Amino acid sequence: MGNHYSLGTAPAHEDLLRLARAPFDLTADGAVDGDRLQRFRASAAGFELFYGTERLGEEVLAALASLADQCGLVDQFRAMRRGAVMNRIEGYGSENRQVLHTACRDVFSDTPAEPAASAGAVVELEKLHDFLADLEAGRLLNEQGLPFDTMIQVGIGGSDLGPRAVFEALRAHGLPNRKVCFVANVDPDHAAAVLSSVDLSTSLINVVSKSGTTLETATNEALVRAALERSGLDPSRHCLCVTGAGSPMDNPDRYLRSFYMTESVGGRYSATSMVGLVTLGFALGYRQVLEFLRGASEMDQSAEETDLRVNPALLMALIGIWNRNYLGHSSLAILPYSQALHRFPAHLQQCDMESNGKSVTRNGLPVAVSTGPVVWGEPGTNGQHAFYQLLHQGTEIVPVEFIGFRRSQYGTDLEYQGSSSQDKLVANLLAQSLALALGRASENPNKAFTGNRPSLLLLAERLDPRTMGALLALYEAKIVFQGFCWNINSFDQEGVQLGKVLATEILTSMQGLQAGSGGIGEEYVVLAGVGQRNTSRK
Amino acid sequence: MGNHYSLGTAPAHEDLLRLARAPFDLTADGAVDGDRLQRFRASAAGFELFYGTERLGEEVLAALASLADQCGLVDQFRAMRRGAVMNRIEGYGSENRQVLHTACRDVFSDTPAEPAASAGAVVELEKLHDFLADLEAGRLLNEQGLPFDTMIQVGIGGSDLGPRAVFEALRAHGLPNRKVCFVANVDPDHAAAVLSSVDLSTSLINVVSKSGTTLETATNEALVRAALERSGLDPSRHCLCVTGAGSPMDNPDRYLRSFYMTESVGGRYSATSMVGLVTLGFALGYRQVLEFLRGASEMDQSAEETDLRVNPALLMALIGIWNRNYLGHSSLAILPYSQALHRFPAHLQQCDMESNGKSVTRNGLPVAVSTGPVVWGEPGTNGQHAFYQLLHQGTEIVPVEFIGFRRSQYGTDLEYQGSSSQDKLVANLLAQSLALALGRASENPNKAFTGNRPSLLLLAERLDPRTMGALLALYEAKIVFQGFCWNINSFDQEGVQLGKVLATEILTSMQGLQAGSGGIGEEYVVLAGVGQRNTSRK
Repeated sequence: MGNHYSLGTAPAHEDLLRLARAPFDLTADGAVDGDRLQRFRASAAGFELFYGTERLGEEVLAALASLADQCGLVDQFRAMRRGAVMNRIEGYGSENRQVLHTACRDVFSDTPAEPAASAGAVVELEKLHDFLADLEAGRLLNEQGLPFDTMIQVGIGGSDLGPRAVFEALRAHGLPNRKVCFVANVDPDHAAAVLSSVDLSTSLINVVSKSGTTLETATNEALVRAALERSGLDPSRHCLCVTGAGSPMDNPDRYLRSFYMTESVGGRYSATSMVGLVTLGFALGYRQVLEFLRGASEMDQSAEETDLRVNPALLMALIGIWNRNYLGHSSLAILPYSQALHRFPAHLQQCDMESNGKSVTRNGLPVAVSTGPVVWGEPGTNGQHAFYQLLHQGTEIVPVEFIGFRRSQYGTDLEYQGSSSQDKLVANLLAQSLALALGRASENPNKAFTGNRPSLLLLAERLDPRTMGALLALYEAKIVFQGFCWNINSFDQEGVQLGKVLATEILTSMQGLQAGSGGIGEEYVVLAGVGQRNTSRK
Repeated sequence: MGNHYSLGTAPAHEDLLRLARAPFDLTADGAVDGDRLQRFRASAAGFELFYGTERLGEEVLAALASLADQCGLVDQFRAMRRGAVMNRIEGYGSENRQVLHTACRDVFSDTPAEPAASAGAVVELEKLHDFLADLEAGRLLNEQGLPFDTMIQVGIGGSDLGPRAVFEALRAHGLPNRKVCFVANVDPDHAAAVLSSVDLSTSLINVVSKSGTTLETATNEALVRAALERSGLDPSRHCLCVTGAGSPMDNPDRYLRSFYMTESVGGRYSATSMVGLVTLGFALGYRQVLEFLRGASEMDQSAEETDLRVNPALLMALIGIWNRNYLGHSSLAILPYSQALHRFPAHLQQCDMESNGKSVTRNGLPVAVSTGPVVWGEPGTNGQHAFYQLLHQGTEIVPVEFIGFRRSQYGTDLEYQGSSSQDKLVANLLAQSLALALGRASENPNKAFTGNRPSLLLLAERLDPRTMGALLALYEAKIVFQGFCWNINSFDQEGVQLGKVLATEILTSMQGLQAGSGGIGEEYVVLAGVGQRNTSRK
């Protein structure tokens, strides 16, 4: 934005195109040695990033650093944290908002980057502190005077995936006797399955929607409120809400407590706002919430470093661009060697693909380069017994981001065949990165590995609230840097609108069909006409 | 194989290349009308396949039918079901096995395609029947004379993903008071989390490994057996196994019951063998197991149809090839509009990517065309609030396979704003397919949709054991057809070996490092040398 170059126009672009004609050969004898792994290494906020198994050398790294400078990536990140209106398309109607999710965790400094937003975050944190203290002290009880032991978060998209990924990651650190469930899908079976597994009388329902109008969430809230009433319970003594001030849900009479988020925090970046913290605090307690925010804040600080080599988020962003725009790889696998992170790839899938799955620049012009890749992943070692076949021997090359930890969370382990499970897990993690890079020759063509398949490793000591906060912020910053580099708006989501409009039309038409319906197939054929009338391109 | 053509050499290839230069324009005025949707429609075993929103017309369909004939796809499928040795690479060492997962459900006919394999399947089914009857009748009880109420399946890859996806899909049909958990990952936190959530005294442990040597499974079995012993329980009264006859796990003294699978059933195709059925039977009862098999068997029958237009599996395979090899799309999203199918994309990710992520033909030559795509997905409507932005407006075009059902499983629903949740779910499903196809023009470039993004719909009345069996078999057949067309071996997985070898080496070296270790980062740098020595390409 402003006076910066972007990917296609930056002077470094030509250099990178030239370098991409002969990317670093990881399979050359001695190419990946200890020295290389030491040199291509950076750290921040408890994480070490190893990128010596990517297909790049010093020259590419220097060109990427130039690209970062020419595109003003760190400048734009600093401006974003300080309140610039980054969510807009120049010359066209757009959301025209600040982007201040980082302010949610900029609460440890006397001089926060954007003081007003951080002050707002502190107000909500204090309300959360008081709410959790009231639960703890027994000042907040149900109709029968019993403590609440369950929280059901009702929300979808950013009000589900991030909070759920973080909760699952940190479940091992949970308070005893606190259970958490999530209802997201408008599929009535989702709520039915969750409701059949809880005792509503001791459950809090945390309804989360920034706009207060999300159809799935409103529907599920109505469904849960009806279930509470059928059980003779008073919904206003069981329901909390997290919403934007002034939204249709901002009606404190209907909720036990109301928490607020601001317009400047996008749904997919909202896990460190009350969208994520109310349920996390219920599960883990307030002290752990602060640790989580502290880790995120530390990583945000590191993302302001102008020296590429000490800024892991910027490194990951540029390595991603090298793989995507110069080596031509169209998807990215995120593979955590930690079962607790089993929903983290789904969160990143949202955060990345909804942010950077765009075709229009911030000036309203068609983008001339490829933007966000398809992001997907599952935990290792499970994936090794599933899709790794394609990673090693498929015709499609998929760059990988591995995530691992030296120690387990529960600390219960067993020596079997001379090693602990945790050692086996770590050994597999390290082995996969090397196997992808190095390959192996074989007389049998079906047992040969070409190697030169790029990956990086993110390593930390243990998955705890602080490292989880750092990991989340690392990826948020990476995604934002890439959006700046592509000169796209990573903060809107106009691409979800057309489906919503058509769904509403079809729903109306379906009601007319009910009587003579011949099954879903017949409905589809009839309803196609509805879609067509509404998308006429004339 | 044999006398058939394959994709690159078949005469139809040139026609398809020519047709791909001007694929069907879904956005043309009136292009997607009711008539088109009716014509591009097929059905089998309770499912309807609609493919009028793919970028193809009658000419492409005819060329794809020729391709199928020239490559002998149905002939090869028939030969596979009748016991041909399909798992091999000619001229090189390979597994050299029959491929008979379809025999597991070919148990309803007097003339099964491969009588010996089906007879073997019936023997195991009868053992399962007796086991479940013993549980039901109280003949099988724990040390205190209490019934078992929990089953923990310990397995990884094919012994986890398929069984888990099917169980989650059918959980709503479960018997009361039967709980099921899965432990797969060697991450010790996985077992720890599961063990902390169950009462071991009333739990059965179902250990599943065809080879009987899977390291993760052996490790987790040891971990669970140790936990049983710590609780004063006798592991041989709690553990079952599913394994190959004669494997190291085939030791009936150590197990309450032992079930067998044959070499000719690959892990990722094993959900209809005892690998999937023991736990499914525990959860749902024997009658539902038979319904599940019946659905799969019906779909297998339909996959033998030589007329492309009445063979949904073959249609999906060829549409996938059109999108992959002719339109150049490198990934495939599978988006079920059913929360119960939340793990089904992960199963298909394994089944597809491990089968078809290959670079060598069945003759040991490099493949000249692109093979299996990256397969991924999450349930709708959740995904609409996550990654659909990229599907609609990203620079990468991702073909989609939607799956939906007219009725919910639990049947608990609520009218809200004039429609039920299930109607909202279905309306969204139909709307998304149309929105991707048709697009929408707009003055605001950021709100414009280019359309012409291909998708298909699979629709059925309700997700129950029979439709789930059919859905599973449909995708298995689709994947197999594609492998035949690419002339690759879809039944081995040599690509997972190198990582295993390196992991073992690294594990040994780690044990030497323990004392002076400086953290996971230092280990990585030192251990990289181990990997290198073992992959030297000289």
